Amino acid sequence: MKVVHTIAEIRTAVGTASREGKTVGLVPTMGYFHEGHLSLMRQAKADNDLVVVSLFVNPTQFGPNEDFRNYPRDLERDAAMAESVGVDLIFNPSPEEMYPEGYSTYVSVEKLTEGLCGASRPGHFKGVTTVCLKLFNIVQADRAYFGRKDYQQFKVIERMVKDLDLPLEIVGMPIVREVDGLAMSSRNSYLSAAERSSALVLSRSLAHAQELLAGGVVNGEELQRKVEAFIGKEPLVQVEYASVVDAESLEPLADISSKAVLALAVRIGKTRLLDNALLEIPAQ
Amino acid sequence: MKVVHTIAEIRTAVGTASREGKTVGLVPTMGYFHEGHLSLMRQAKADNDLVVVSLFVNPTQFGPNEDFRNYPRDLERDAAMAESVGVDLIFNPSPEEMYPEGYSTYVSVEKLTEGLCGASRPGHFKGVTTVCLKLFNIVQADRAYFGRKDYQQFKVIERMVKDLDLPLEIVGMPIVREVDGLAMSSRNSYLSAAERSSALVLSRSLAHAQELLAGGVVNGEELQRKVEAFIGKEPLVQVEYASVVDAESLEPLADISSKAVLALAVRIGKTRLLDNALLEIPAQ
Repeated sequence: MKVVHTIAEIRTAVGTASREGKTVGLVPTMGYFHEGHLSLMRQAKADNDLVVVSLFVNPTQFGPNEDFRNYPRDLERDAAMAESVGVDLIFNPSPEEMYPEGYSTYVSVEKLTEGLCGASRPGHFKGVTTVCLKLFNIVQADRAYFGRKDYQQFKVIERMVKDLDLPLEIVGMPIVREVDGLAMSSRNSYLSAAERSSALVLSRSLAHAQELLAGGVVNGEELQRKVEAFIGKEPLVQVEYASVVDAESLEPLADISSKAVLALAVRIGKTRLLDNALLEIPAQ
Repeated sequence: MKVVHTIAEIRTAVGTASREGKTVGLVPTMGYFHEGHLSLMRQAKADNDLVVVSLFVNPTQFGPNEDFRNYPRDLERDAAMAESVGVDLIFNPSPEEMYPEGYSTYVSVEKLTEGLCGASRPGHFKGVTTVCLKLFNIVQADRAYFGRKDYQQFKVIERMVKDLDLPLEIVGMPIVREVDGLAMSSRNSYLSAAERSSALVLSRSLAHAQELLAGGVVNGEELQRKVEAFIGKEPLVQVEYASVVDAESLEPLADISSKAVLALAVRIGKTRLLDNALLEIPAQ
């Protein structure tokens, strides 16, 4: 496995493989890997001849009061983990390499980015779509892999790729969880022991919602209220949103009859965590 | 030469050529060809194995009170002209093919799009950059050709390609003029005989500016004022802007010492026309 830091180097390495007819899988990440990241890399390895992992804590997707500076970083540990699952190349550019002096182009997906995380993180998705488009253009991958923990991000990237006619396939992978149910996240490393314990309310509230739905609570707003109340019992946890939305349009759902997602964002101390689940509509 | 209307068809046709190792040149146009367009196609033919011309009057780059509906269209005439200079493929999609239901992704270049035409045509460049990015992704060309008559458009596209790390070269081609100096434009077809005659003030004012500069008028604002006064003598012509800008940043230039462009936009009746020239700084 090779770690490269410049666009020219990654282009040369991938270009050589492409000319040999090899397929290329890209896993875009901000590093500090956990099993969720590794599951994407393993799938990329299974599907493609060459696997590229980009590792870039992208400044443009963080707000001015967010955790860009403190976001956990450990390239040495990450490189060892990536190598252990057969990754061929890590692309680890500097912010200056990605956004040189005079940089001024941004891509935005409208509608899908307005609600959920978009409402509280203005500019976040514009940063995400722009860096992903750049990575897709730099690596020229056949497939790119995203976890569904940030479900909105996954749908936004899917939309961008479709709308811009990009010649690559977006693969969405299941959420990977700790044995007690907590969705894996690099930001879990911020949690104290008490906060880590409180965080279990996220996955538990998803299971609770499924039970409520099976018990006949098919009104989106009612389900949301009950989930918020359930999470509210944990004193360390503040709900940012607990939204029942259409799985494709991400619009709030009044009646849970089509494919629906319950999407959660909470704050535990200074840590912002996400989780979500597809709601299984009970047979009539 | 073949005329195709769907993204799938153009992808298949270009894909076959690419796999045979052929290079691909793209000329993005809104049709109603004149010698300016043909000069781009001839250059594309000289530089590449396969030449694709896109012909699409792009609705998203027109404002609500602009000439989208009336923009001149003649596919049969255009196809014959393109074939005469050796074009291989015309891609002529419908608006629904390019922007299907649910479409919601846009690319914007900031800074460069703020002044000149961007000031009076909000959303125009967002439409231009988005459709060009889509065309680049669909055709996967090695080179794309743009005329320098819309100098700002050319610089904006160049910037987008650089910023987004697109693997294609943007080639800017010289303005092609009628024998009397009028820059060729599909919109010249809107002009009455009297308006056509008045329109000569555009190219004449560029020559006048060059003389003023040679005579020592090296202050950008002073030169602008004199050029505006020169154009103002034509009663049918309203100046939208006559701006002396840096050729790279498009920022107004106080002193004409670096590479400068004099960019003009005027209205003659309902017709909006552009012209520009690089200012040659006199030897000290």
